[in-house]
This record gives sequence, structure tokens and C-alpha cells, in this order.
Amino acid sequence: MKNERVYIIGGYQTDFARNWAKERKHIAAMMREAYQGSIEATDIYPGDIKAAFIGNFAGELYCMQGHLGAFFADFDPRFVGLPTMRFEAACAAGAIAALSAMAHIQAGIHDLICVIGVELMKTADSAKGGNYLGTAAWYEKECFGIEYPFPKLFGKLGDEYDKRYGLDNKYLARIAEINYANAKNNPNAQTRDWFMNFEHACVKGKYNSVISGRIKVTDCSQITDGAVCLYLASEDYAAKYAKQMGLPLEKVPRIIGWGHTTAPIEFAKKIADSANCEYVLPMTRKAITDAYSRAGVKDCWDLDVIETHDCFTTSEYMAIDHFGLTKPGESFKAIEQGVIEPRGKLPINPSGGLIGCGHPVGATGVRQLLDAYKQITGTAGDYQVPGAKTVAMLNIGGSATTNVCFIAGIDD
Amino acid sequence: MKNERVYIIGGYQTDFARNWAKERKHIAAMMREAYQGSIEATDIYPGDIKAAFIGNFAGELYCMQGHLGAFFADFDPRFVGLPTMRFEAACAAGAIAALSAMAHIQAGIHDLICVIGVELMKTADSAKGGNYLGTAAWYEKECFGIEYPFPKLFGKLGDEYDKRYGLDNKYLARIAEINYANAKNNPNAQTRDWFMNFEHACVKGKYNSVISGRIKVTDCSQITDGAVCLYLASEDYAAKYAKQMGLPLEKVPRIIGWGHTTAPIEFAKKIADSANCEYVLPMTRKAITDAYSRAGVKDCWDLDVIETHDCFTTSEYMAIDHFGLTKPGESFKAIEQGVIEPRGKLPINPSGGLIGCGHPVGATGVRQLLDAYKQITGTAGDYQVPGAKTVAMLNIGGSATTNVCFIAGIDD
Repeated sequence: MKNERVYIIGGYQTDFARNWAKERKHIAAMMREAYQGSIEATDIYPGDIKAAFIGNFAGELYCMQGHLGAFFADFDPRFVGLPTMRFEAACAAGAIAALSAMAHIQAGIHDLICVIGVELMKTADSAKGGNYLGTAAWYEKECFGIEYPFPKLFGKLGDEYDKRYGLDNKYLARIAEINYANAKNNPNAQTRDWFMNFEHACVKGKYNSVISGRIKVTDCSQITDGAVCLYLASEDYAAKYAKQMGLPLEKVPRIIGWGHTTAPIEFAKKIADSANCEYVLPMTRKAITDAYSRAGVKDCWDLDVIETHDCFTTSEYMAIDHFGLTKPGESFKAIEQGVIEPRGKLPINPSGGLIGCGHPVGATGVRQLLDAYKQITGTAGDYQVPGAKTVAMLNIGGSATTNVCFIAGIDD
Repeated sequence: MKNERVYIIGGYQTDFARNWAKERKHIAAMMREAYQGSIEATDIYPGDIKAAFIGNFAGELYCMQGHLGAFFADFDPRFVGLPTMRFEAACAAGAIAALSAMAHIQAGIHDLICVIGVELMKTADSAKGGNYLGTAAWYEKECFGIEYPFPKLFGKLGDEYDKRYGLDNKYLARIAEINYANAKNNPNAQTRDWFMNFEHACVKGKYNSVISGRIKVTDCSQITDGAVCLYLASEDYAAKYAKQMGLPLEKVPRIIGWGHTTAPIEFAKKIADSANCEYVLPMTRKAITDAYSRAGVKDCWDLDVIETHDCFTTSEYMAIDHFGLTKPGESFKAIEQGVIEPRGKLPINPSGGLIGCGHPVGATGVRQLLDAYKQITGTAGDYQVPGAKTVAMLNIGGSATTNVCFIAGIDD
């Protein structure tokens, strides 16, 4: 390929605590604010941007708006004519946009691509929004007529762990507690001012409603409005940019590995298929190990930070063993030993993750990649993991149907 | 780039006259049928497929189903784990999926990609469906509370031609007549059995309702259900395939040029911006001339066939001068002189185009590319343009907001 190396040039995240529906702002206004913030944050010359790739899950349902790529041409007169596209793979839409941007750079088609992940969800109440989320699964078979289908699907993931290996819900409560605590250090996190402690995360009842089975409100990421704008670039552009910023190129993070798999869309089929596998979700595991292998990463202990897709506490519980922090089924050990805490051996979600930072669906993958950039460049502020050089992120769509893992690092 | 050359390996189109909603079939069933037809049509070994890219406009609205990439993993046990993604750029979704597949091949990431364009629209009546289509424009500003917003927007395109250059509606009627006549030669065309003649296309009234202004029913492409499955491949794969089929590689069509632009999403802004331009839609023109220049095509007279985006007769009228068949504003001359007819100097839409063949929104760009393949390989049957070697297609999204032009050809 022409440009083997793809660099991350930074970007901007909107404050995920905001309610854009209440502010009466259009989804395009949110994209525009993320774009404008990104220019201030990076000092990129707008005229250098060659294309805009937008990750969005369901603007048509939440905002009665599709064709989101097109709005980019409106942000600056220099953008009229620029190629744009919108990507969707349910909650992995953001990572898919980044993945395709990487391919376009490697092909030598564009050398600087603006990747925006965006979702405005607070237009819908939780029942309606929960129903919209059902379109990420096989709606007719798995969600039609079911209230809150996704908490139910990820509840079943916990049930499957319980069946195969045993699962004490206190570990899920601890995952929630850690993510909320981490979020308090992130000035853009949705829940940074919300109350949470272990006892509350364990309560089942009127102060912490049960959504379904083992999934309570505190086990869920929350409905979030947010956008993230990030730049991916060729080595030529990155070298020019590094020079402009007075940095050696070796200090600019780049994508050193990636994995991308699709499992059968139905959750029951995934579980049936994995009956004789070591891992509950082998296709999720494969996305991670493909990324390890492309990055030349031996195992998870070569990583300094993981940002993973904790749409529910059960998905983070799954990520712990799937990344290889423990043997399959033993994720509880990493929780018990404090491995995943901010000062642990391999911190997970110092940003607060989806449960703490928030989960504007199409934005999440881009947010995770931006957080990887921040950790590597030492600009993550109060949620910085000291000395982080190699960061992995896992973004999943549907019930772990689309799985994308990126590993970012520096050559330094 | 690793694989400069990207080849088209053929594919399959569903019968666009079918009503899948009435057949009570899911959108995934339609994708699957297109996929299965494509294997029969091409003799590709399914195990060679490395990824699936899906173009779809608004499955969430028409079918309450997103995450369409994921269904591919269900079609064959060998596809479990395959990377998939869904692309959207309104009515240009199909071309965007193909464009991105091209980039992934050029980057050396995958060497054989299955591109499926799909839309199941007959779930909605025409008022509801027309409203859904509004999400391809700036819905809140251009479509909210407006019945049939898109015929109105493309009516305004005709009005603008009329204002700048004069436009006699008889030329629009002739465009409809030609597309319907061409469709009679296409066994997959939606309107192949429908009545149409010039007099009927001119009638304004009870036998041919006025939708808005100069746009009557006969000026519109119709609500269509359909899917198209096409393969794009690297030179390595194409060489292997050609050998398997007993063909010289030079006989396999490839993408020789492409252009991709985004104009501001609002139609009024496009028109205001072009006030001092030669062309009414300069960003559409740019997509075409970018493709000419990448393909080393001097002008339209180097082409043998054009498949263009006639969502309305006015968009084909626009395409005629934007492709350069006439000077700007003089499209009527090419119509009068028979240039665009099947035996004319440069046939447009021998397939019947969107008006005759049908317009399942997200499938159209892929259908156009498949028709380019058919023309070049001499397999277009009764709508074959004899000796066609170089074919251009133009797929537009929204009110000519996203513009994608591909030119396919052979080296022979």
C-alpha cells in the first residue's frame, strides 16, 4: 500500500453531559461544534482536509435526518465539493468510519480525513429510544414487542457466563463503580456529577430499578448526546503537521493494529456457535487477536490502557477475558486484583467508558480512538494513565455482532 | 497504492418489479437472494469473499432494521467473522459502498469484496415513503410538513433550467418515454409491462397526476424494492478468476475512473452558489470531470454508454449537459437529435434508468455499475449497446448533494 502508516492527529469531544434536544439544536449543529472544537484543539488548516467520514447509527430514527456526510460541506466554504460518506454498523459505526478512513489513506486516495462520530438520542424517551436500538439486532426476531431489548440481550450474555463459569453480580457492580469513579476525572463525561458507590450498584429495587434479570439501571450505559471529531492522516501529512507543531514525527500516535469481524446477528446463534469454544464470543476475541497480530503485540500485557465497549457491565466483563487479562471465564480475578483500576496493571476505561463517559452510539468508536490519542500524548488530564504508549480500544455493534479493535501507539 | 487496478467481476440484480413487502419477505431475504443469484451468475467461490459492503439508504425507516452488514455473516457458514460495513449517502449509498470497496482493495486490505445495494420501500405508502425520502435533504428546513418534498426539489431544478436557458416540458416527456421504452428490453425493469407513450407523458391531469409544478407521475422514478450484488476485486484475484473462466484478463472490466463530490445539502444554496457558473450543478459536473480525468477520457464522446441518475426527468435533463453531450443549457438538442436513444451517438440509460428500471434507493448505484459491467461484457441482452467498451455512471444522493461518477472500461 502507498501509505502503510496511518497517524492520529487529535480531535475534540463534545461534553457528553449536554442535552442537545433540550438545547433545541440540530444534529448538524452538534457535528459542527465538534468540528470547530477540533480545529482549535489541533490547529489543522481546514483547507488541508480532503474528505469527511461520518459514523452514525440511526439519525433517521432519532432525528429524522440521514445523509449526514452532506452537512460537512456546509461548515466551511472550502469544504464545498469535498467527498463525504456516512457509515453505520450499529454501535460500532464510529470505528467503521475510522477503519474505512484508514483504508482510503493507505490507498493514497486522501491524506487527511476528518472522522466524525455523532448521535443525538435525547429526542426520544427511554422506551422509544430502546426500541430504536433494537434495529441494531435482528429487530423482527429479537426485539419486536420487547421492552428494552438490548439490556435483555446483554443480560443473557451475563447468564451465559454464569452458566459456563459462574458469575457473581458483585463483580458487575464493581465494574459500574469503577467506570463511574473514572468518569469523575473526565470533564466531558456524562455521569461526572452523578452519585454512585458499590452498595448502590448492588441494590436491586426502588433506588436502582431492575431492567431485566441481572441488569439494573447501574449496569447500563445511559442515553447520551454527543459528537467526536478526529483526524486520520498519511505519513506525509503527519510529518508536515509534526513539523508545524515542533514535534518529532515519532511523537505522533498512529494506528499500529486493527481487527474487524462480524458475528451472526442473532445473539442466540452466537451463543450456540460458541458452545464448544474457549471464548463466549469468539468473533469478538478474533477482532482483538487480529489487532494484536497486526500490531506485533504479544498479548494484553504489551498494552498500557484499554478503552472497551461497556454498553453494559456484562460487555466489560466479557472484554476482560477476551482481551486476555485472565483465562476465559475468570474475568472476576482481574476485578478482584484491581488490575483494571486506573492505577492497576492494565487500566480499563480510565475515561469512564460507555457507562461513565456516556454512549452516543455512533460517536463511541471515535471517542475511544480520541481517548487513545489523549493517553498516548499525555493529554488526558485527570484521567491520564502515566506513561501510556500503547492503547487498545474495542467498539462493538449490536450484541457483539460487529467487532472492531484498534491499537494505537508510538514508535518512540 | 498496492492494487492500482480494481476489477468488476459481475453480479446479480433482483427483478425490480417484485413487491417484497407483499411477498412478506424481510430485507435480509432480499439481500440473500441477490447474493445467491450473484454466485450463480459469476461462479465465484464463496470462500474467496473477504468482506461485504452494504449500501442502503434508510432501512431503519422503511423496515425498522439497521446494521445490514451483519446479515451477510448469516448467508454462509464461511462468512462468520467476515468484515462488513453499511454505507449511506442517501440515493448515492450504493456508489459510496462501491467507492469504499475500491479503496479497501487499492489499500491491499481485501482482494475480493461483495458489494450489495439494497432497499425495501414498498412497506410504506407513497406519502409516508415520500416523507422518509425527505431525510436525504435537510429534513427540518426543506421537507418538514411538505408533501412529496423530492419531486418538489427536482421540479425546482427544472424551474432553474427554465429561468436560465428556457425549458420546454416536451423534452422531459421525451426523457420519460425513452426510459420506459428502454425498460421494455430489460427483464429486471420495474416498468417493463407498464403503458407509456409520448402523448401520455405530456398529459397533465387525471390520467397523469401532477405531483408539483412541472413534475407529473411520469416524470418520477417509482417506489421500488430491489437488491443488487456485485463483486470488486484486485488484479491478483481478477487474474485468477479470468483464468478459471478461460478469459484473458483484458476482457474483465475494471474501474478506470471515478469522481466523488459533496455539494451543500440545501437545494437553494446549491442554486445560489451556481448563479455565476456555467453549470447549474457545478459539483455534479466536477464529479463527472474528475472521473474523466482519472480515466484519461477526453470528453463524453470517448464513452459508449451512460447510465445516469434519472430520479426525475429533470435530473436526466441536467445530466445531459453536465456530462458534456451539449453546451450548458442545451440538453434539449441531444434529445431532439436522438443522441441519447439506444441506437444514438451516446445512449443514456439503455437499462431504462431509474424511471424505467426502478429506483430502490440504496441499490441504484450498484445496479448502474452492474449494468456498466453487462454492457462492457456484451451480456446486457436485449438492452445491449453493440460494442460498448467504456461506460460511465452517475449516482446522486439528495438534491444532487452527493455525486459519484464511475467510468468502467477494458484495456482490450
